Amino acid sequence: MSSVEAGAPGGGTARRELVVTFTREQIAAYAEASGDRNPIHLDDEAARAAGLPGVIAHGMLQMGLLARVAGDPARLRRLSCRFAEVVAPGDTVTFRGEETNGRVELTAVNQDGRAVITRGRAELAPSGLDGRS
Amino acid sequence: MSSVEAGAPGGGTARRELVVTFTREQIAAYAEASGDRNPIHLDDEAARAAGLPGVIAHGMLQMGLLARVAGDPARLRRLSCRFAEVVAPGDTVTFRGEETNGRVELTAVNQDGRAVITRGRAELAPSGLDGRS
Repeated sequence: MSSVEAGAPGGGTARRELVVTFTREQIAAYAEASGDRNPIHLDDEAARAAGLPGVIAHGMLQMGLLARVAGDPARLRRLSCRFAEVVAPGDTVTFRGEETNGRVELTAVNQDGRAVITRGRAELAPSGLDGRS
Repeated sequence: MSSVEAGAPGGGTARRELVVTFTREQIAAYAEASGDRNPIHLDDEAARAAGLPGVIAHGMLQMGLLARVAGDPARLRRLSCRFAEVVAPGDTVTFRGEETNGRVELTAVNQDGRAVITRGRAELAPSGLDGRS
């Protein structure tokens, strides 16, 4: 997992990037933590019976990683995205966020250049832990 | 954790409910699985230094639980919400989803009747694993 952050303090556009190669172990850990133990995430045979090539990552695991490039999680006030492609163990996904004045455009693209998440958007509170409403 | 599901097969409105009492252990497990180990989720002293009464749950942990009442995760195509209130260990949150024709309205309310998440919406694919776009 690697990450890059570049910003213009006090204004302008801040860019964040996170590159993640998904593993079975990470998907299994997320299944435990989230309580979503659907066998399509844990058991290749069950995944194939569901028409998949093998186990896939949880959409919400992808969205959780996407949220990390939105900015400071304590400032995160709104998040939305569309799940476009499945992500399997071994896939490498580049998550990118581009923030201007608290509005963030989010993308997630796999090693084949395909968008696994589309229409990713976030809103950040102005600062610290304020701004909940 | 308790859950209820009631639906009208073949049409109408399906309702799902999940009641979760958050624990430090669950929040710590989510920190590991997601890689978000911000001390405001793990260390009371650090949380207090940030102006909080103590550790709080990750917004994305709340959103992950919210996604579970949206419906079959394999059909989840779009998800959005707004984070309105912090959730701390010991808080009991009732997550509810009400689906009509693949459109889901989502709510999350704590033991004091306060909405911790607002503007929760999801879209589900018509069936199975199809419908990605």
